[in-house]
Amino acid sequence: MNKKVGKQTVRLDSKPKIISTFSVVGPKEGNGPLSEYFDVILEDDLNKEDTYEKAESSILYMAIKESIKKANLSDNDIDYLFAGDLLNQLTSSTFAAKDMDIPFLGLYGACSTMTESLAIAAMILDGGFANHVIAATSSHYSSAERQFRFPLEYGSQKAPTAQWTVTGAGSMVLGTEGNFPYITYTTIGKVKDYGVNDVNNMGEAMAPAAVNTISQHFMDTGRTPDYYDLIVTGDLGIVGKRITKELIMEYGYDISSNYIDCGDEIFNHEKQLTNAGGSGCGCSAVVDCGYIYKNLLSGKLKKVLLISTGALLSSTSCQQGLTIPGIAHAVAIES
Amino acid sequence: MNKKVGKQTVRLDSKPKIISTFSVVGPKEGNGPLSEYFDVILEDDLNKEDTYEKAESSILYMAIKESIKKANLSDNDIDYLFAGDLLNQLTSSTFAAKDMDIPFLGLYGACSTMTESLAIAAMILDGGFANHVIAATSSHYSSAERQFRFPLEYGSQKAPTAQWTVTGAGSMVLGTEGNFPYITYTTIGKVKDYGVNDVNNMGEAMAPAAVNTISQHFMDTGRTPDYYDLIVTGDLGIVGKRITKELIMEYGYDISSNYIDCGDEIFNHEKQLTNAGGSGCGCSAVVDCGYIYKNLLSGKLKKVLLISTGALLSSTSCQQGLTIPGIAHAVAIES
Repeated sequence: MNKKVGKQTVRLDSKPKIISTFSVVGPKEGNGPLSEYFDVILEDDLNKEDTYEKAESSILYMAIKESIKKANLSDNDIDYLFAGDLLNQLTSSTFAAKDMDIPFLGLYGACSTMTESLAIAAMILDGGFANHVIAATSSHYSSAERQFRFPLEYGSQKAPTAQWTVTGAGSMVLGTEGNFPYITYTTIGKVKDYGVNDVNNMGEAMAPAAVNTISQHFMDTGRTPDYYDLIVTGDLGIVGKRITKELIMEYGYDISSNYIDCGDEIFNHEKQLTNAGGSGCGCSAVVDCGYIYKNLLSGKLKKVLLISTGALLSSTSCQQGLTIPGIAHAVAIES
Repeated sequence: MNKKVGKQTVRLDSKPKIISTFSVVGPKEGNGPLSEYFDVILEDDLNKEDTYEKAESSILYMAIKESIKKANLSDNDIDYLFAGDLLNQLTSSTFAAKDMDIPFLGLYGACSTMTESLAIAAMILDGGFANHVIAATSSHYSSAERQFRFPLEYGSQKAPTAQWTVTGAGSMVLGTEGNFPYITYTTIGKVKDYGVNDVNNMGEAMAPAAVNTISQHFMDTGRTPDYYDLIVTGDLGIVGKRITKELIMEYGYDISSNYIDCGDEIFNHEKQLTNAGGSGCGCSAVVDCGYIYKNLLSGKLKKVLLISTGALLSSTSCQQGLTIPGIAHAVAIES
């Protein structure tokens, strides 16, 4: 049976359920406007480890293990762990996975990894290949800064368009049974390159990919923006969100009344000095696992379209003068 | 319908077909014993680009585009491109994908990426989510050396257990129709860490993961080693191959009569001074897309088990004194 709908979307007839989520954030994220929705707020962003990379891996491990516990399951019940992060060679994810007894599939989509993992996990479940799967991802401000930009010790200044990588990890357990929020459609994005090469303005680099995937989702499904209670992009931040809202008008869709961005929501930018807002895989992970999921559970939200967005750069590609391509994947969740 | 077989294996009832493959290798690989099986042998490993990273991306692009052509298809016929490579943030894959009109899902499993992409691609096809998908990966000796070890200009010596990263890219187009070699089972591996931390001996680091996945495949399916004409690990090289052959005896499986390793086959180690053999995502990609696939097409091989193996290290994890976990995924191909 072919489940394709339009060009880039598939329908998940079995409605894979998100049976639990768990989110862990750093102290700064815990001081932001969404603090009440996170499961754990760290007091120290090193989480008792001696490097930021180990700290990131430890919070991803915590998020995954706790999400399994919350679902009343154990490692052995999980058929696949789909996970990824921003660190070179997925260091956080692989070192988290090595202490778990779960088949592991590593993914990389930069900050789009939450919906990338969620979309693949949902398809694998719907296809009958698993009973329970996990989609998880993480990022860490301090490990990302020194890998992509400068060691923190340099005290570099940030451009007004620069974003603040979220310290956080989120994990979702998906299953086939139960009365939980469920996934109805996924729309997988294409890599879009509009020639942006300013590493301090990733919102601008990612916005065209977000617009492309969101409008393709509407075209494929025949839905319109008002179908959803909330359309939630991953981490475009203030700049990328503004571009997305305007640009998608040219495709004939007005999302201005029900559109938010995780990078915009997670911080109080003026008070917390986070410039254009949050970013990193962990940004949409913790907002989706925390704020969005808990509002779906409570019934405050019923239909949500999640679109995590990724800027596909490496420090090598930037140093070689290349542009920053973007990507975005959409997942429709309903309850 | 549940397609799970045993603990880590799934059965693909629709038998996803590998309808075309394409392989591109560098001059050194073209001088090796498998030269007749590769589709393109580069004269210059820069492939007219000005950096090795761009060269790697260009050969991956070539492999994907030519595999599509060989299948008499165009970009628009491909529902998903599953690809990954060794470069930080999957630079080769994302920059290859940005010039294609195909939804992209980036994967990272180090040198296990060929069977990781092939396994997910096969499940997505079997699940009814696509008509055609691509599994592809690449590596490049010169981009890998400078990223993971030392700039080539240093002229560093290599340990006898060190492997030589293959310059190569391979792409497979999978479809639902036609009389082609087809995929019957996939077995997804767990991350295995036996405490090896010698970056010059990745074969030893990966062997336990290979043994674990291969023996799990036999346990799950009830098959024995003699079911297959050939059991093919990804890039364990001479050292890892020897360990695998011995270690799997302890699980009660004797694979000594029908087992080869891509890293062992691709070079003439003594003549070509490649120490413990080939490695890199491109190694199993070009051997599987070239030697294995062409022998399946000709009927010389009928039942093959492919197991690409990955060493999950980053230069950061090594510098922080961490071990090198390994992973391996198996895909059974029959005709």
